[in-house]
Amino acid sequence: MPRSGEGRVLSIQSHVSFGYVGGKAAVFPLQCLGYDVDVVNTVNLSNHTGYGRWGGTRATASELDGIFESMEQNGLLLPNRLLTGYIPGAEALSAVMSVAKKLRDRNPELLYLLDPVIGDSGKMYVAPDVVPIYRTALQNATIITPNWFEVEVLTDVKILDITSLRRAIQILHDEYRVPNIVISSIPLRDWLRNILPLHIRPPSDSPDQDFLLCISSTTFGPGAESSQPSSVYAQHVPCLPGYFSGVGDLFSALVLAHFEPSGSSASPAESPLSHAVSQALTKTHGILSLTHEYSESLPEEDRLPTDEEKDASAPDRKIRRMRGRELRLVQGQDIIRGTEHIEYRQMEPWTGFWES
Amino acid sequence: MPRSGEGRVLSIQSHVSFGYVGGKAAVFPLQCLGYDVDVVNTVNLSNHTGYGRWGGTRATASELDGIFESMEQNGLLLPNRLLTGYIPGAEALSAVMSVAKKLRDRNPELLYLLDPVIGDSGKMYVAPDVVPIYRTALQNATIITPNWFEVEVLTDVKILDITSLRRAIQILHDEYRVPNIVISSIPLRDWLRNILPLHIRPPSDSPDQDFLLCISSTTFGPGAESSQPSSVYAQHVPCLPGYFSGVGDLFSALVLAHFEPSGSSASPAESPLSHAVSQALTKTHGILSLTHEYSESLPEEDRLPTDEEKDASAPDRKIRRMRGRELRLVQGQDIIRGTEHIEYRQMEPWTGFWES
Repeated sequence: MPRSGEGRVLSIQSHVSFGYVGGKAAVFPLQCLGYDVDVVNTVNLSNHTGYGRWGGTRATASELDGIFESMEQNGLLLPNRLLTGYIPGAEALSAVMSVAKKLRDRNPELLYLLDPVIGDSGKMYVAPDVVPIYRTALQNATIITPNWFEVEVLTDVKILDITSLRRAIQILHDEYRVPNIVISSIPLRDWLRNILPLHIRPPSDSPDQDFLLCISSTTFGPGAESSQPSSVYAQHVPCLPGYFSGVGDLFSALVLAHFEPSGSSASPAESPLSHAVSQALTKTHGILSLTHEYSESLPEEDRLPTDEEKDASAPDRKIRRMRGRELRLVQGQDIIRGTEHIEYRQMEPWTGFWES
Repeated sequence: MPRSGEGRVLSIQSHVSFGYVGGKAAVFPLQCLGYDVDVVNTVNLSNHTGYGRWGGTRATASELDGIFESMEQNGLLLPNRLLTGYIPGAEALSAVMSVAKKLRDRNPELLYLLDPVIGDSGKMYVAPDVVPIYRTALQNATIITPNWFEVEVLTDVKILDITSLRRAIQILHDEYRVPNIVISSIPLRDWLRNILPLHIRPPSDSPDQDFLLCISSTTFGPGAESSQPSSVYAQHVPCLPGYFSGVGDLFSALVLAHFEPSGSSASPAESPLSHAVSQALTKTHGILSLTHEYSESLPEEDRLPTDEEKDASAPDRKIRRMRGRELRLVQGQDIIRGTEHIEYRQMEPWTGFWES
């Protein structure tokens, strides 16, 4: 975390008036952790689109350019960290990525976390023409935080086993030149559970509990002697029932906030990336648990389970559920600040990941 | 301050990517104090206009309507507090004021702090046609926070002595039906200093120090027996050199955050309004002192004093100064949260205010 006044993040993502996704999920946590945050809104909507109905507008590429150009002219493009998230449409994405490139060219020390928001669980929620733009832009990133579906789309590798998982990670490191990869959540299916080292596997006495796996991978710097392509860490977290929006945006912001390349805050068993991811995993899960607890405390009509047929015929059903599942960021701010202690979810070295 | 999850503020004001004015000065403090904040941006600019150059766009009335209508349809217009600040142009202001009226009609308990942002120190920075709209809207407000110039414009009374000051306050209470008025800052000139009760007067051993006076006035509820029109409190604060932007926006947010109509957090010597204003004055001055200290620590070329002639011929001069004077909100968040203790600036009863 920054010493007083040292950390300045430029955050470029969506804005919603009500609720916590995009910038609304990222900016407050970064501020709580001591960062000045410059906030550029790629959309201005009433609420996230999962509600089914929303109002507001998307910023055009030329509106975004107008903001970036004035910041540049005024000498206000001075972040030492950059965070980009959901950017709808290829033109706006190109505008943002050219700012990212400019900042990277100007400052090799820039820490850029690029969250390639493309889709989830097999569904794309951006236009297909953004994918090649992301592929070209990856080389400017310090860290990327795709989910498993986004890894598949970016690398064109279907992740079905350890071989394809290795190949996908290697493509991101080698072809796209990304030094730090965090695959934020992969459903822990049997094939994956069975190849995990014992110390990372969930306890076997919880067969009914679903888990997600988080994997991080860092290439060894040039000159480092290693027979392996990267250093890999992983950890599982219990999967909470139902869908919560903005979780990935919160997680990415926390990874960026806690990443210290010098590794000063990491313990000997941690790498700078694994430390940041452990912090992000711990705090994100803490906020999610708080949100889950709250949504469970609501009257029944505010927590009707997902049922696409019933939702379609009664939109209010979905809206009430969404409203009750907005992240409890404000109520959980002591978790974010680290002053409320909760179970620490430490990323563990996945020794043997690269050995067949 | 809200018990967990009880406080929800709808904040409608400007957004700037860099720096702290409007929503950027208000939202983070409200969140730190435990409020969920719904954020509607009336403008999306790169930086505040005091820099002389800026990019971005203003939301049209129909864009704002689109956001409000979707929030309404989705049942997301549920604030128990409302905060409105800078809204450029009469059409956008009308759109916002009709939402304010709707929320007020629906919920008589709504706490609405209306900051009638019109201008400062004799200069208007909105179009003249917004003034009548504000005049009509004042009746929906719980609290207003004009500076002395805005009081003059709204009431058409030039404040030159105690008689005109009384008249202006009485017009706001009686004609415009505002129960709580906070005149956030009046330069403490001799005429004003001389009519202050001794316990509110600045020490006489500081003749070179300029002060600002903050005045609050609350009408007695219907049925209360009082021979006086209102209960008046005041306090002075030392004036820091130079101009800081966003101070009024921060102050208003803090007044709203700390206002508890039941008065549960106020001591016997305080009213609910005077308590909220004392907190806001204390914390705003704390943040300002921190900002002043920081700007003094910058290299000389970043803190050249205001000189309109030199500024006009070298715009970078002004920009560097502005940049170094952005509020240190993130660095001062413990002041906002009340965990860092600083000198308490308590509003004191101005006994005799109404007696000639």
